[in-house]
Amino acid sequence: MRDAYQDQLDDLADGLAGMCNQVAEALEKATRSLLDADLQLAEEVISEDIRVDEIRAAAEEKAFALLALQAPVATDLRIVVSAIHGAGDIERMGDLALHVAQAARRRHPQPVLPGEVAPYFAEMGRVGVRLARKAGDVIRTRDLAAAAELESDDDAMDDLHRHMFSVLMDRHWSHGVGPAVDITLLARFYERYADHAVAVARRIVYVVTGQMPGPLTV
Amino acid sequence: MRDAYQDQLDDLADGLAGMCNQVAEALEKATRSLLDADLQLAEEVISEDIRVDEIRAAAEEKAFALLALQAPVATDLRIVVSAIHGAGDIERMGDLALHVAQAARRRHPQPVLPGEVAPYFAEMGRVGVRLARKAGDVIRTRDLAAAAELESDDDAMDDLHRHMFSVLMDRHWSHGVGPAVDITLLARFYERYADHAVAVARRIVYVVTGQMPGPLTV
Repeated sequence: MRDAYQDQLDDLADGLAGMCNQVAEALEKATRSLLDADLQLAEEVISEDIRVDEIRAAAEEKAFALLALQAPVATDLRIVVSAIHGAGDIERMGDLALHVAQAARRRHPQPVLPGEVAPYFAEMGRVGVRLARKAGDVIRTRDLAAAAELESDDDAMDDLHRHMFSVLMDRHWSHGVGPAVDITLLARFYERYADHAVAVARRIVYVVTGQMPGPLTV
Repeated sequence: MRDAYQDQLDDLADGLAGMCNQVAEALEKATRSLLDADLQLAEEVISEDIRVDEIRAAAEEKAFALLALQAPVATDLRIVVSAIHGAGDIERMGDLALHVAQAARRRHPQPVLPGEVAPYFAEMGRVGVRLARKAGDVIRTRDLAAAAELESDDDAMDDLHRHMFSVLMDRHWSHGVGPAVDITLLARFYERYADHAVAVARRIVYVVTGQMPGPLTV
């Protein structure tokens, strides 16, 4: 019985780690759809988001069944509660990738981004995808050093986010209000995506140490 | 023992309902600080947010203790899991009210909002505060009709949010990029605040019926 129970816990972690890879791929595609005004890629991201939602629902059901049938305590209980939180964070990452794809679709065939800001979004996309993949690794390995790496990746995202605002607010900005509004929201989506990846890693730190790292100030 | 256990469950719900009132008050004050460029009020919201975070941590500890010591099943388990989710949503509502106050502080003594958009934010504030108070009532009463009311309040918020964008994108917009960027983010904060209140109410529907209402598309 104990083995079946451990299998269930591992299965829960595998599901979440897989979800991380899925939202990493979603953000990768969404960023490309944004940079290349690629409608087909945007549509793919939009139609695939339902699968992330389904995995989340399945993960919650597994967590619920574990709580009801196994009544875990101590570390095992922390694993299950963290999985419930993590599933919510990762689903939200999928939603944010979806929002990026929706922006690309809304303006198609026009590009959303003026050429001079495209490289920043390419970089925000890379950092975001890296954060999601690392969050998946942390779920699988419970490696605290890897969990700490997400914090510095998130700092890089915050720097990019701040920089975007200074570009928009600069008096040389020549693209008017419409693109500025789009860029404001898009930059926010990437920044929030990164925050949720960090939250996932922090919950794993809590599983391992019993202590939550300091709160994320966003 | 059963009574002490029920007391613990009630105590958990009371804590969350109180948290709702606190974030309602935070948004009320934050909105006034925004409309009146009232720095002192903004500072109050900013310094009080830590209390919301503390109540959230306490609620999570209570939920964790209930799971570990009482091993609830069925409806009671749904109550505890929903409380864990709800605490996260309500804390986020507090963060969003904080962001509104931070925007007011950042631009002080300048007002953030051009006069023509101020009434929309006054209305978004009223709708948001109403949503938070109703979410608190739903936690206390588990009244499904009241839970459904939050959906229509949220529709009102979405309409206001969409309308703000059409104002910004209008060719008569004369305030330039800076205020447009501020308004884009602020409108987003109110809209997300409302979404989290709806999520809290939906979790209560799940507690009562065992079924989650359809996903929130945001």
